Amino acid sequence: MDKKVKVNASILIIGNEILSGRTQDTNTSTLAMWLNSIGVSVAEVRVIPDVEETIVETLNFLRKTYDYVFTTGGIGPTHDDITAQSVSKAFGIKYEAHKEAFKILENYYQLGEFNDGRQKMAWMPENAKLILNPTSGAPGFNVENVFSLPGVPSILKSMLGGLTNRIVGGEPIKSLSISLRTIESEIANSLTKVQNQNQDVEIGSYPFFHAGKLGVSIVIRSENQKKIDHCKAQILNFVNEKKIEIVER
Amino acid sequence: MDKKVKVNASILIIGNEILSGRTQDTNTSTLAMWLNSIGVSVAEVRVIPDVEETIVETLNFLRKTYDYVFTTGGIGPTHDDITAQSVSKAFGIKYEAHKEAFKILENYYQLGEFNDGRQKMAWMPENAKLILNPTSGAPGFNVENVFSLPGVPSILKSMLGGLTNRIVGGEPIKSLSISLRTIESEIANSLTKVQNQNQDVEIGSYPFFHAGKLGVSIVIRSENQKKIDHCKAQILNFVNEKKIEIVER
Repeated sequence: MDKKVKVNASILIIGNEILSGRTQDTNTSTLAMWLNSIGVSVAEVRVIPDVEETIVETLNFLRKTYDYVFTTGGIGPTHDDITAQSVSKAFGIKYEAHKEAFKILENYYQLGEFNDGRQKMAWMPENAKLILNPTSGAPGFNVENVFSLPGVPSILKSMLGGLTNRIVGGEPIKSLSISLRTIESEIANSLTKVQNQNQDVEIGSYPFFHAGKLGVSIVIRSENQKKIDHCKAQILNFVNEKKIEIVER
Repeated sequence: MDKKVKVNASILIIGNEILSGRTQDTNTSTLAMWLNSIGVSVAEVRVIPDVEETIVETLNFLRKTYDYVFTTGGIGPTHDDITAQSVSKAFGIKYEAHKEAFKILENYYQLGEFNDGRQKMAWMPENAKLILNPTSGAPGFNVENVFSLPGVPSILKSMLGGLTNRIVGGEPIKSLSISLRTIESEIANSLTKVQNQNQDVEIGSYPFFHAGKLGVSIVIRSENQKKIDHCKAQILNFVNEKKIEIVER
C-alpha cells in the first residue's frame, strides 16, 4: 500500500454495558492515542448494542467509509458475545472454528479445561488473520480493514503492540498544547483569527479548572510541525499583547 | 404525549478532543444512567468532530430515528463551538441572539464583562427552549426532540435535574446484578439457556478482576421486575447446581 498523507479510522464499541452507563468506556481514548501515534486519525466513534443486525449494518457502513475500523467487545465465550459471527455476516464469509486460534487456545488451557464455552472463542470469519493476545490467550481477528479486539481495557491494551506493524498510517499527527490563565471568552476573537488564517490546522480550545483556578488549554494539531509552530507563534503574539499568563500543566 | 412503554434516545458527543484521545468522555455514562432512571434507554452513541456538515447530517439522522437526542459539547464561546449554528441548520431554523439567554448571561456577568465572546453563547436556534445552567450561567437549549448540553462534565451534570420533567420516559429500566466467583466459560451454556427462555430480557455477562480474584457479573435488565426475578431464579438454580460462590461487590 502506498503511504497516504492522511489515514483515518473509526472505532465501533459493541456492548450494552456501555449504553446502559454501567461501564465507562476507556478503549476509545486508548485506541485514539495509539492510532494518532502511528499516523491514523479517528474520524468517528459509535457505540451500539449487542444486536447482530445493528452490528452488521453499522460495520458495513464504517468499513466502506473509513480506511480502518476497530471494533471492541463481544468476543468472549458467552451468549452476548456475537461480534465474530456478525463480522462474518457483514463480509459474507463463513463463520467457523479457526484452526490456528483453536490450537492457541488448546495450548493455553490445561488439559480438560478447554470446554465448549472456550472453544467458542476460536470461532471466527474463515481465514481471518489473528491478533495475538499476550494477556489471556483468546486472540482477536482481522478481516480486510476491520480489526476486532476484546472489550476488557487491560487485555485490549496488551494487544496493540503486536498490531502496530499491520496498520499503514500516514504522517503521525503532532499536537501542541498551550495552557493559559484566562477564560475562553477573553481569547475567542483572537483565536478565531488564527484559525481562519490556518484552516488546515486543527485548533481546539478547552477550559480547565486546576488547583483552584480557571484556565484554557489551546490544542494545535497537524501532521506538519512547521504549521503547528506557525500557529503557536501567532497565539503567543496575542497572549503577550493581552498580558495573559502561560501556565505549566 | 401518551406514555410509551419503551422510549429510546441517542447521545451525540461533539468534539475533536474526544476523537483525539486527549479527553476521556464521561458524559455518556452520566447521561445513560440518568436516562435509564427516567425510563429512557440509550440505543446508540456517536462521537463526531467539530465539523458543521457532519453535525448537521448526523443530527438529522438521529433525531428522525430515536425519540430523543442529547448532544454534548460545542456550546462555548470559541471558534470551535459550532453546535448551536449546526442545530439551527439541521432544523432549517434561523440562528440568532436568543432574548432570554441574552438576559440570563447579561445578569450573570458583571457590568462590562459581557463581551462579544460571551454574547456568542446567547446565539441559538430561533425560539429554542432554554436548559438552565445553575453552575456557569450559559444555558443549553432544546428544539423539538433535541437537547443540547455543554461538554464540561460537572456543568452537564448540574443541568440534568432541571430537565427531568421535560423528558417523557417509559417504564423505568430496572437492573439486577449477580456477581459470581467463576469464569465466563463455566457458565456460558447455562446462561445461554436462560437468555433463550427469556428473550425480551437483556442479560449481559461481564468478567471482573477484584481483590486479586476473577469473577463474572451477570446483569439482568428489563422494565418488568417480575421478568427480572424470573431470570434471577433460573440463574440461581444453575449457580447452586454448579456450586458456584456468590460474591458481594
